[in-house]
Amino acid sequence: MKIGLLGHGIVGKGVREIIDAGATWEVRELSVKKILVKFDWELVDPRCTQDAKDILDDPEIDVVVECMGGIEPARTFCLEALAKGKHVVTSNKKMLANSCGELFACALAHDVAVHYEAACGGGIPWMASLDRTRRVDDIDGFRGIFNGTTNYILSEMASGGKSFAEMLKEAQSLGYAEKDPSDDIDGFDVKYKVALSCVKAFDVIPNIDGILTYGIRNIDQVDLAFCEKNGYACKLIGKAKRDGARVSAMVMPAFLRKEDVFSNIPLNFNCIESVSKTLGAATFVGQGAGSLPTAHAVVQNIVDIWKKQDPEINPKDNVIVDNSTYCGVFYIRSANIDKAASYVDKEAGECAVVTKRMTINELSEIVKDLNDSGMFVAEVAK
Amino acid sequence: MKIGLLGHGIVGKGVREIIDAGATWEVRELSVKKILVKFDWELVDPRCTQDAKDILDDPEIDVVVECMGGIEPARTFCLEALAKGKHVVTSNKKMLANSCGELFACALAHDVAVHYEAACGGGIPWMASLDRTRRVDDIDGFRGIFNGTTNYILSEMASGGKSFAEMLKEAQSLGYAEKDPSDDIDGFDVKYKVALSCVKAFDVIPNIDGILTYGIRNIDQVDLAFCEKNGYACKLIGKAKRDGARVSAMVMPAFLRKEDVFSNIPLNFNCIESVSKTLGAATFVGQGAGSLPTAHAVVQNIVDIWKKQDPEINPKDNVIVDNSTYCGVFYIRSANIDKAASYVDKEAGECAVVTKRMTINELSEIVKDLNDSGMFVAEVAK
Repeated sequence: MKIGLLGHGIVGKGVREIIDAGATWEVRELSVKKILVKFDWELVDPRCTQDAKDILDDPEIDVVVECMGGIEPARTFCLEALAKGKHVVTSNKKMLANSCGELFACALAHDVAVHYEAACGGGIPWMASLDRTRRVDDIDGFRGIFNGTTNYILSEMASGGKSFAEMLKEAQSLGYAEKDPSDDIDGFDVKYKVALSCVKAFDVIPNIDGILTYGIRNIDQVDLAFCEKNGYACKLIGKAKRDGARVSAMVMPAFLRKEDVFSNIPLNFNCIESVSKTLGAATFVGQGAGSLPTAHAVVQNIVDIWKKQDPEINPKDNVIVDNSTYCGVFYIRSANIDKAASYVDKEAGECAVVTKRMTINELSEIVKDLNDSGMFVAEVAK
Repeated sequence: MKIGLLGHGIVGKGVREIIDAGATWEVRELSVKKILVKFDWELVDPRCTQDAKDILDDPEIDVVVECMGGIEPARTFCLEALAKGKHVVTSNKKMLANSCGELFACALAHDVAVHYEAACGGGIPWMASLDRTRRVDDIDGFRGIFNGTTNYILSEMASGGKSFAEMLKEAQSLGYAEKDPSDDIDGFDVKYKVALSCVKAFDVIPNIDGILTYGIRNIDQVDLAFCEKNGYACKLIGKAKRDGARVSAMVMPAFLRKEDVFSNIPLNFNCIESVSKTLGAATFVGQGAGSLPTAHAVVQNIVDIWKKQDPEINPKDNVIVDNSTYCGVFYIRSANIDKAASYVDKEAGECAVVTKRMTINELSEIVKDLNDSGMFVAEVAK
């Protein structure tokens, strides 16, 4: 089966390497025919081209692998490939989470499929396990450490005592974090992955703006000292639950009990757990990113297509996320002591710390009222 | 697709419940036609019979699910079913690990398959993930907490300070441990599961007697005090590695660093990790036993058969396990102080404790020389 690669960066190179190496008989059934690159200096392989038409118009190419990143032109290329009867495999969570509805509809109309195991929990067989679990069970919910970069920052801040700014710089120098780290540290990357997991787990496309999202940009050693004192570890958690037709979904730092498996996920690893009726809790730990683990997930999807093991995807579009009945204990640390005084039950140096059981609506009201761009919010485990 | 159940105990009942409930469209394609029970008082359902022939001779039955436990008559029934062109799904690790070769050969000869996801890591999609990973990668090795009963005993001994005898009694009263607990506490149950994982991961049937096996029968609070003092947690680990044609495999208590994810697996949960070239380390945590999680795995295998997603199994038989080049740091605690003196580098009260880097052959020689039925052996993590 012939494959066209859109993009030859970290993931694209990994896909080419795995397929060229052909370690198993399944992989030896696949071949990369053409590779779209952006710049002259990337034309390192006779298969490289700078014209997407060479791939999209090639009738021999059955599968288009999109690993360009960014929304455009990735989205347009994927729609064109689908319209031409080619299957699409993508590792691009941002593009897919923002264009799920039209991509799935286009795939359905042209009797092909969109696969995206690599877009969420790359090196963890998370998406594949959801597909399998759902053959026997409905999924009730999931939670996960979906972002390796922030897990690295949080783990190292806790063990090494460094500041957030120092750790971010270190993560950038290691290549874990982008120059513009907003997608990671403000929780958007996790939000996209939660949205895609909702598609797989619940057969719904949530409105991504409805996924409540708090990041770790403002975390400070004072917050980690609170964790240490009270037996918690801080992790950035994305999670969602289904209750009948209602879907709740959120991204938020969480203070988890130290004996929770999630508290002990090191470095840039991911950890995701599904809960379903007969299987119960099933947890998956692995490398959420990296060239070969992510490329492995892409190649698995190509093998799925080759084996005609396409999942039936026809999720309900535009499902409104509803967190209104969600209730939890939340930690809010703000330097706006005057305002915070009315909520406060603890003081931490020059900051006020609120830890109270409340609904999401109450949380949002307090956050709005405090109006503090340096505020840090986390959910506290029972 | 019609199913005959051999056995209506904890697993069998779960399988019947899941199929009768029919939560998904895949499961609604299945039906349980007959159920073999042993005693009169088990004839609670019109589908129950006390004659195995009612199932084995029924041409309408495509799949025989064996969850009787024990080696005979389970083995004979499975061979008969395969010879009659019926697929077999079994949760019986003891029977399968002892009869792999003949069962797979019989299946191959009659163009049917033996499925056994439930026999190892029941509620964890461990076997299924190995199948999937192997489509793209060779598996280099695996390690796991494969036995929930011993994990429960070890976790509770460490946190509650109770003796092994007390905790074993408690596990028995909770139904986790059998009246004859030898399979669990002497490591045989893990040995069977390591053998079956070798079949899946490496395509070899190891000689199970060659799998070096130490259990937790002799563990004492003095060993856990050693762990606590040195920052370790004690877990019973089964593991295997492949290096070219050589397969090493062993079952042994291990002192793991507290920050290792394995150290924090609570209660009766299982945790298994595979390592492969492009995916890297992938770890799975879930309930290794229990009626519904185990039955879920059985039903997944029936869906595999229905979807014609049979794995190609033709493993190399009688592969001799070779631990000769394995080297590690081992902890040996013995009351045989006189003999142990020649090896000792630490003393613990009235016992001698050896912790030294050595080969498996050296370990076996010391163990033989000490000749102490109360001795406790563990591997110490780097």
